Amino acid sequence: MVFQGGLIMRPDDANIAGNVHGGTILKMIEEAGAIISTRHCNSQSGEHCVAALARVERTDFLSPMCIGEVAHVSAEITYTSKHSVEVQVNVLSENILTGAKRVTNRATLWYVPLSLKNVDKVLEVPPIQYAWKELEEDGKKRYEEQKLERLVTKQRNGDIIFPVFNPEPYTVGYSQSSLIHLVGPSDCTLHGFVHGGVTMKLMDEVAGIVAARHCKTNIVTASVDAINFHEKIKKGCVITISGRMTFTSNKSMEIEVFVDADPFVDEPKERYRAVSAFFTYVSLSKEGKPVPVPQLVETEDEKRRFEDGKGRYLQTKAKRQVQMQPLTQQ
Amino acid sequence: MVFQGGLIMRPDDANIAGNVHGGTILKMIEEAGAIISTRHCNSQSGEHCVAALARVERTDFLSPMCIGEVAHVSAEITYTSKHSVEVQVNVLSENILTGAKRVTNRATLWYVPLSLKNVDKVLEVPPIQYAWKELEEDGKKRYEEQKLERLVTKQRNGDIIFPVFNPEPYTVGYSQSSLIHLVGPSDCTLHGFVHGGVTMKLMDEVAGIVAARHCKTNIVTASVDAINFHEKIKKGCVITISGRMTFTSNKSMEIEVFVDADPFVDEPKERYRAVSAFFTYVSLSKEGKPVPVPQLVETEDEKRRFEDGKGRYLQTKAKRQVQMQPLTQQ
Amino acid sequence: MVFQGGLIMRPDDANIAGNVHGGTILKMIEEAGAIISTRHCNSQSGEHCVAALARVERTDFLSPMCIGEVAHVSAEITYTSKHSVEVQVNVLSENILTGAKRVTNRATLWYVPLSLKNVDKVLEVPPIQYAWKELEEDGKKRYEEQKLERLVTKQRNGDIIFPVFNPEPYTVGYSQSSLIHLVGPSDCTLHGFVHGGVTMKLMDEVAGIVAARHCKTNIVTASVDAINFHEKIKKGCVITISGRMTFTSNKSMEIEVFVDADPFVDEPKERYRAVSAFFTYVSLSKEGKPVPVPQLVETEDEKRRFEDGKGRYLQTKAKRQVQMQPLTQQ
Repeated sequence: MVFQGGLIMRPDDANIAGNVHGGTILKMIEEAGAIISTRHCNSQSGEHCVAALARVERTDFLSPMCIGEVAHVSAEITYTSKHSVEVQVNVLSENILTGAKRVTNRATLWYVPLSLKNVDKVLEVPPIQYAWKELEEDGKKRYEEQKLERLVTKQRNGDIIFPVFNPEPYTVGYSQSSLIHLVGPSDCTLHGFVHGGVTMKLMDEVAGIVAARHCKTNIVTASVDAINFHEKIKKGCVITISGRMTFTSNKSMEIEVFVDADPFVDEPKERYRAVSAFFTYVSLSKEGKPVPVPQLVETEDEKRRFEDGKGRYLQTKAKRQVQMQPLTQQ
Repeated sequence: MVFQGGLIMRPDDANIAGNVHGGTILKMIEEAGAIISTRHCNSQSGEHCVAALARVERTDFLSPMCIGEVAHVSAEITYTSKHSVEVQVNVLSENILTGAKRVTNRATLWYVPLSLKNVDKVLEVPPIQYAWKELEEDGKKRYEEQKLERLVTKQRNGDIIFPVFNPEPYTVGYSQSSLIHLVGPSDCTLHGFVHGGVTMKLMDEVAGIVAARHCKTNIVTASVDAINFHEKIKKGCVITISGRMTFTSNKSMEIEVFVDADPFVDEPKERYRAVSAFFTYVSLSKEGKPVPVPQLVETEDEKRRFEDGKGRYLQTKAKRQVQMQPLTQQ
Repeated sequence: MVFQGGLIMRPDDANIAGNVHGGTILKMIEEAGAIISTRHCNSQSGEHCVAALARVERTDFLSPMCIGEVAHVSAEITYTSKHSVEVQVNVLSENILTGAKRVTNRATLWYVPLSLKNVDKVLEVPPIQYAWKELEEDGKKRYEEQKLERLVTKQRNGDIIFPVFNPEPYTVGYSQSSLIHLVGPSDCTLHGFVHGGVTMKLMDEVAGIVAARHCKTNIVTASVDAINFHEKIKKGCVITISGRMTFTSNKSMEIEVFVDADPFVDEPKERYRAVSAFFTYVSLSKEGKPVPVPQLVETEDEKRRFEDGKGRYLQTKAKRQVQMQPLTQQ
């Protein structure tokens, strides 16, 4: 059973120098593996299932792939145990202008079929036929080896990178969050600066995660305070977007968001603050009605920021009396 | 019946409850503002320019927008000063099944025209005509107010959320990075679990940022060690992907990446480690040739991890002698 | 100055030379058509429905669209039969720096309203009012013509594309290509079927790869023959899109594209042919001028398809004499 497909590499798939990200290639490899193994595991009558990725063997990137090239992914099932499927995937890159083709990756993936009705139940895999007995024996050896290695890794896996101080629920530290984003071509205007709208979308994303972490319900944006764009952000920058809770009223939360830019390749410039803003969120019940928000527990510094937030809240509330009725006032 | 503009809201634009993210709406608003102000600033002969977003006034989300609804965005220039343009944007949501329409947003944005030849040069804005003299006077008042507020915010803007310990260049702490990602519908299989390939793409993204921060050059993925997927990640989770440098050889860097999942809405489960892996990167010159990597400066703990990484490096190198020649060996 | 609709074209919407993909434009056209016809079919009280694309008439790409330009799409309902809606869509491209506008496309699409409760049930379409009786009569003629053509295509539709080993350059086997796509939530309408525009975008992508492989230059979509959507494609399907060269004239190539769907999990159904179409591409020099296309070398079977393609080419050419001058004729 063989899978064959081809895909043009786009600017957003690659870094500034035009090299396709390894992650883009890994994603294509896994999609091919998931399709072929799901198809195989459903090839006999019985309970329907989806193949879930259990392990990827060590993978080398043998040669770079570039924007405009066509990636060809082919996949083949090479071994089946009772509950798992081994898939071999090859990736070729083709320069369609010169016709040149290069092997860029060979990967081996292991999948496990999970029942569609009960995703914690592993189903049985229909056996494949081998052209030679040796192929089955080699496969079995690989199967045993990876099984052992999986056990070993699981033990090593408790390590952490960023110290977590186990902050108490409802403190500022408990919900604060940050994300980094590598600025790509489609984020930018014609002359290479990030669209303001792209930045605001990322800011809202971080604010939403802070709000959801704080109250663990469905949350929606109720308003955004004035946002000033102090400095342009250039293509190729890495931006860090960080958010923290500053204030809670009965039914709303205020989250402060900062955007910092690192002009990190070939630029002498230091990290700088590009944008900052306050987002207000409300918490919704399953029926979509606003529900009370857990109140913020604060340190001294945070109390000061809370008082500032309260000031903004009351000021806005006063303004609204003479204007229309937005979502937070329902 | 005539159609003018309008965009269908997709599952990827919304949270699990089906509400369109505030950030998606802000992005649409800004795109409309950028188009109309760029068009206006280029409407007289002279140097070409792009309008860059300088400020967004406080914006309320008046009612929620849902998947399947059509968003209508309209924009109008309401004031021009010598060097800036005020744009008012309205967003309507339309349920095309019932025909119901609701105003979801009214926003005011300020743009500044930057020369295409020299993006640090602000050009002059052609004045607009006002239907009444009062419109101009009101606009001028808004202009003065926002100018003042921008100054005030700029001063407050030095605050930071996550303490930075000013680590020395080439230490582990200097380049370590993390990103959070809210799992969306397109990240998932039919039964609501994240595709392994989506996770690997995010892991490679973090590893790439760590590598680039360390050596400040163009970098590419050379290989990925075996990756084990210990636990499924469900739709609606927030995942934190963290990476840190563990080892540098002459021309390669090894980065360890962890993926932790927070099942954060309506789930009693604690944060858990879902995946971990080692990525190897090489640093490239502008001509695309591998160049030496700055060596890692380490603490005691990091020295131990460095030795472990060196072990993996030598083991892989030995294996490769009998296999093919990948990118790091060129 | 007022803004209504309009979308900035991004790097990912275009090929390396900066020309927006025909498939991106077809997707925008179809989204506009789906909105206006769904809105119309729900304009009277009764069962709610979603308009599904049944057919797109032959479409010419009159002039290229570039990155940074703003695409304006407008649509109008021009005819309704008992069970179908005809929509005419116009696409303008605007250079917001120079103010220049060009018509890039005029398309005619046919939609059929499917009940939201039972997607196999076709509902009735509310009749529109015509300004003149002649408009209704012309519409009826178009309706009858396309009805006949749809029947004819359905019969031709059984053909398949087989892999060729070690093909010679300029043969059909040399350039034939396929891509595989797992249908995700954002590809689908509210009731879980793939948007016609998503399918057309993928078809154009495959056709573009075939064209580029054949002539190894920058290529752009010049036109698409009428496309019939025989069967709906459901969420969770895997679709295979295959393309092969059928005909070359002096400055254009015709590529046949097939879309096959595999309902691979949870569905007893066999793979089925969902759509097929002919795309015409032109080859451009670095300066963007049309250049001669290498002629196709053929087997017996392919000669027959070539003759068929030549027939379509001459027929279209004859029709064009009395119409406007599209891209291939410049």
